Amino acid sequence: MILTVTLNTALDLTYGVPALVPHTSHRVGDISERPGGKGLNVARVLSALGHETVVTGFAGGATGAVLHELLADLPPRDALVPVAGNTRRTIAVVDASTGDTTQLNEPGPLVSADEWAAFLATYEKLLADADAVALCGSLPPGIHVGAYAELVRVARAAEVPVLLDTSGEPLRRGIAARPDLIKPNADELAQLTGSRDPLRATRDARRRGAHGVIASLGADGMLAVTPEGAWRAAPPDRVAGNPTGAGDSAVAGLLSGLVEGLSWPDRLRRAVALSTATVLAPAAGEFDRAAYEELLPRVGIEEQAPTV
Amino acid sequence: MILTVTLNTALDLTYGVPALVPHTSHRVGDISERPGGKGLNVARVLSALGHETVVTGFAGGATGAVLHELLADLPPRDALVPVAGNTRRTIAVVDASTGDTTQLNEPGPLVSADEWAAFLATYEKLLADADAVALCGSLPPGIHVGAYAELVRVARAAEVPVLLDTSGEPLRRGIAARPDLIKPNADELAQLTGSRDPLRATRDARRRGAHGVIASLGADGMLAVTPEGAWRAAPPDRVAGNPTGAGDSAVAGLLSGLVEGLSWPDRLRRAVALSTATVLAPAAGEFDRAAYEELLPRVGIEEQAPTV
Repeated sequence: MILTVTLNTALDLTYGVPALVPHTSHRVGDISERPGGKGLNVARVLSALGHETVVTGFAGGATGAVLHELLADLPPRDALVPVAGNTRRTIAVVDASTGDTTQLNEPGPLVSADEWAAFLATYEKLLADADAVALCGSLPPGIHVGAYAELVRVARAAEVPVLLDTSGEPLRRGIAARPDLIKPNADELAQLTGSRDPLRATRDARRRGAHGVIASLGADGMLAVTPEGAWRAAPPDRVAGNPTGAGDSAVAGLLSGLVEGLSWPDRLRRAVALSTATVLAPAAGEFDRAAYEELLPRVGIEEQAPTV
Repeated sequence: MILTVTLNTALDLTYGVPALVPHTSHRVGDISERPGGKGLNVARVLSALGHETVVTGFAGGATGAVLHELLADLPPRDALVPVAGNTRRTIAVVDASTGDTTQLNEPGPLVSADEWAAFLATYEKLLADADAVALCGSLPPGIHVGAYAELVRVARAAEVPVLLDTSGEPLRRGIAARPDLIKPNADELAQLTGSRDPLRATRDARRRGAHGVIASLGADGMLAVTPEGAWRAAPPDRVAGNPTGAGDSAVAGLLSGLVEGLSWPDRLRRAVALSTATVLAPAAGEFDRAAYEELLPRVGIEEQAPTV
């Protein structure tokens, strides 16, 4: 099975309003509630690709109870660890007049040292059956900034390939523990390395400790620099749509390809096709399966010079 | 005891953000959660004034469970009736850069005919012990627009004085059932009668069936036209602050004064002082007790000509 870790899970609410006008009152039309947090999104896509998946991380309080309830109806197995605080809500206010989204993200619950220890015990147990693990998203309050470095080391000791998808200081510290893969976007890479040049920044990120770096370049596709070689992968056409969750779908593509023993070009084809098919799907974080299958053989792969 | 009815209860969330910028992402700093809906606010103020109070209406789903939990710590007795749907959330986004609030209100749960019948049975039982009842706020989906008229008739049959505080068509229909009091604000009065002249509109509202009309005129205080006479009541000074809940505090002032057998001028003094002390309190819907006691003897009362 594939394990995904979401330390800062969320209950994602989407509110439809005719138009968002600050300092006025709005009647919300459509509401949707779904389990949120990057690792949960990755797990949903992995399940849709036919992989057995388990999600862990934290859930607590009344919103945590709703999260468990919603997960019960989905294929990934729920192995979230209890926390005393309330799982955060995120609210995406979708303005029907422009199609734009305004995001309000609660902070996560404060995680105690005992709760972190309980999570670590669960994580180690789950790794015993894992073919790969993805560590995803931000850290809730109370968790030390080196937490991802600690989780990367535990996974490597268990010989489970580990992908780290986070940002800022937790990414910087996590990379030093030598994860198999990181999947930063252009902003995260620039924040990490100080460079806006994807090639230079990707090489720098490898020097910092990541074995493989898959930089997502938005509509331009991906740049992969790995011990086996370097490639650029690009979608056949530029597409417009909702990019929410596109990065999580790419992680699912990379991880499923790794577990299935696909070549790097095939893993990248899958990651780019899934991420493009996610932009095309009307619901945030879902992917359009027909678009995915149509796009897959058409993703362009270009090998890069070994100096990269 | 005093009974308050809130058919469309809410879980009121307040989110503090440094500045609300549409189409961007915000980290929410402070979060507060409190039981919401006009009748619940009225009950809290009645309790603070020393009155035994009972709240009824509907609560359901995960947010309804949180509502029950929060009410357990407050003095009003919780007699909310179960509903299958989820109690709505309201979100007040407070912009720290301007102090202004942007409000997002979910629709309420769909109430079935059986749930409405169960509520009516509870309502009739509670009226047997009630000295007065307040019917407050909007109707959730599924409840017929004449619901308040029905509740007014049941209260009058039980000889319990009834105050109706709603707006739009439910107010128009409710007035025809001859409630003892209505407490519209200037907008609600204008919507009901087509007139922006408070005196003319208040007289019109009485002709439509309300025995007493207490029009709240915001910072100008209140205009009361009752079978016993007519008065204007005004706060001693203009105050600035958060007007959320000021109308609910006024309802609590009027209802407590009625139950205690106060004269109309004393009821109005209390209503205006409470409502002004609510504007002055930093937390939405709370009142500043010291300000209330200081304001009470200074509220100006002016009897109006009987032609009013």
